Amino acid sequence: MEREPDPPHREPDLRHHGDAEVRGADGPLTGLADLAVNVRTGTPPAWLKARIAASLDGLAAYPDGRAARRAVAARHRLPVGRVLLTAGAAEAFVLIARAVRARRPVVVHPQFTEPEAALRDAGHDVARVLLTEADGFRLDPAAVPADADLVVVGNPTNPTSVLHPAAALERLARPGRTLVVDEAFMDAVPGERESLAGRVGELPGLIVLRSLTKTWGLAGLRIGYVLAAEDTVDALERAQPLWPVSTPALAAAEACCEPAALTEAAAAAEEIAGDRAHLLARLGEFAPLRAVGPAAGPFVLVRLPGAAAVRAGLRARGFAVRRGDTFPGLGPDWLRLAVRDRSTTDRLVAALADVLAEQPLG
Amino acid sequence: MEREPDPPHREPDLRHHGDAEVRGADGPLTGLADLAVNVRTGTPPAWLKARIAASLDGLAAYPDGRAARRAVAARHRLPVGRVLLTAGAAEAFVLIARAVRARRPVVVHPQFTEPEAALRDAGHDVARVLLTEADGFRLDPAAVPADADLVVVGNPTNPTSVLHPAAALERLARPGRTLVVDEAFMDAVPGERESLAGRVGELPGLIVLRSLTKTWGLAGLRIGYVLAAEDTVDALERAQPLWPVSTPALAAAEACCEPAALTEAAAAAEEIAGDRAHLLARLGEFAPLRAVGPAAGPFVLVRLPGAAAVRAGLRARGFAVRRGDTFPGLGPDWLRLAVRDRSTTDRLVAALADVLAEQPLG
Repeated sequence: MEREPDPPHREPDLRHHGDAEVRGADGPLTGLADLAVNVRTGTPPAWLKARIAASLDGLAAYPDGRAARRAVAARHRLPVGRVLLTAGAAEAFVLIARAVRARRPVVVHPQFTEPEAALRDAGHDVARVLLTEADGFRLDPAAVPADADLVVVGNPTNPTSVLHPAAALERLARPGRTLVVDEAFMDAVPGERESLAGRVGELPGLIVLRSLTKTWGLAGLRIGYVLAAEDTVDALERAQPLWPVSTPALAAAEACCEPAALTEAAAAAEEIAGDRAHLLARLGEFAPLRAVGPAAGPFVLVRLPGAAAVRAGLRARGFAVRRGDTFPGLGPDWLRLAVRDRSTTDRLVAALADVLAEQPLG
Repeated sequence: MEREPDPPHREPDLRHHGDAEVRGADGPLTGLADLAVNVRTGTPPAWLKARIAASLDGLAAYPDGRAARRAVAARHRLPVGRVLLTAGAAEAFVLIARAVRARRPVVVHPQFTEPEAALRDAGHDVARVLLTEADGFRLDPAAVPADADLVVVGNPTNPTSVLHPAAALERLARPGRTLVVDEAFMDAVPGERESLAGRVGELPGLIVLRSLTKTWGLAGLRIGYVLAAEDTVDALERAQPLWPVSTPALAAAEACCEPAALTEAAAAAEEIAGDRAHLLARLGEFAPLRAVGPAAGPFVLVRLPGAAAVRAGLRARGFAVRRGDTFPGLGPDWLRLAVRDRSTTDRLVAALADVLAEQPLG
């Protein structure tokens, strides 16, 4: 099922995602340590799984999203009308592509490719702003064309792990432009600093997307949400199917907004920061390998010559890592590695050393 | 939350559904016997709930729909490429409205209103064919305009409970026309006679929609599927968000296609037929009340003068029934009653007698 790397000048496959790296012909590949998918390990926690399991008693009734919507609104101290629950962020991208009027949409790359894929599927002609390695993949608001009326940017950005300052993003907002900030990984950033979630309804055209998938291990449940001004929420909701979010997903959303859950997520964010520092320190042992920094997400982007062969070598040794060449603006020299606990990282590094002993870098 | 009946000449509210009849301001209304929603009582069964609960162990991984798709294909003896899993039939209506080209879509009413609502939301100008009480709400293929290039019809039809002959539906199929047959309640018909599920890919333009919601009590899980020719499935799939169906919903779909589940569904269909006969016999005690027949679904449509007041009276006595006036082609005199076990029916009939003693019919 897995495709070989595209030749350098071919358009990257926007529909390739990390889950394909750990999937066989019939189901998940067992025995592979998964550093390709950015979901926190050991999730969902037992207490959350129990809450979701309890919701199965109500499956015969149609979903009623009102309580979960109120919980999300309260968690972000926003009016309930500025919240829309979605079947994962993936649904949100499709809704935005269909319901938001735009003549000149711009996607800031490299980033998660679904927003651009959804815009193209909806018939939009999408322009790209490419951030560069030389600039540390940092956002330069001046690089976004002044006439762009829809701008999509990730923060922290997948796959670069760069956290853009909220102030830089704010400079992109203006009347007549929709600014979509994908904060799918923001809850992995201690203090959620640089989040614009609290600014929706104030900053013109701002739409913030959030996910519960990564921190809580709910990729299989399809739950996320949109924060935006009331009229935008209404327009997106009209584009949703009836009963868009399942009862177990609603139960999870409600549970993940409770104070104890927020405390747990904050602790996980601190732990990720420590584990990421360890990963980066260990990667520093391999001279020609360069990691993009400062990294703020639960993953790091690295550049190394011959990355495709290294990825194959790691895979043969039981480690799945994410190819970078399907992200616009990157090429065959890039890999994305999920942040894992230190012992997994140490095993990865040992495998990497083994691979590189056979096929030296640079 | 509940709206009063529209005046006779106002456009019915296509977005009113039975779940609103059993919903309070904050959640489900307890203590009401629910004859408004057409979900089989006592569902999901314990074995199915256990299968769904077991799937929660895999929530951290992104959904992989391949096994469920193969199971649905095998259940209908169709190639896997003719199956598309959806987040309930509601998603399927939205996908069809967006992905199928149509200049002259026609919806055969009275029927479930979501297909028309989804078509309108996608910008279509929708024409209606109204079946009539005088004709027993039976389908006359000649009533469908020859130039209709998208025709939507339910079989058995919600809310009339009329089962159209497969031969009549086949006469609606032709090159250049998409024929959508909503078979959401077909698994409640013994032998699934008159189903066109096995004809997709052969009969030109045929799309069959199926649901697992009603028989299996999975309204909260959002799972259904589309059967169609490969190219149609591909077009609908391109309009879906990434990872459209959750892992628990996929587990349920797979489980409900197993031979033991099909045997259980067949037995439930026979039981419903018996319970429906009892309901119709008891309703026959109320002279001016007329039930549409022959009824084939897990609900019956009845006409009685002053239905709105009767509905309010039943509600005051603990029974929620579905108003009929939000279905195009019906009016304030109609109610839809779910088929329940005989003792529930007998209690309903006693309540109805009580209501009618206070406010005599006709």
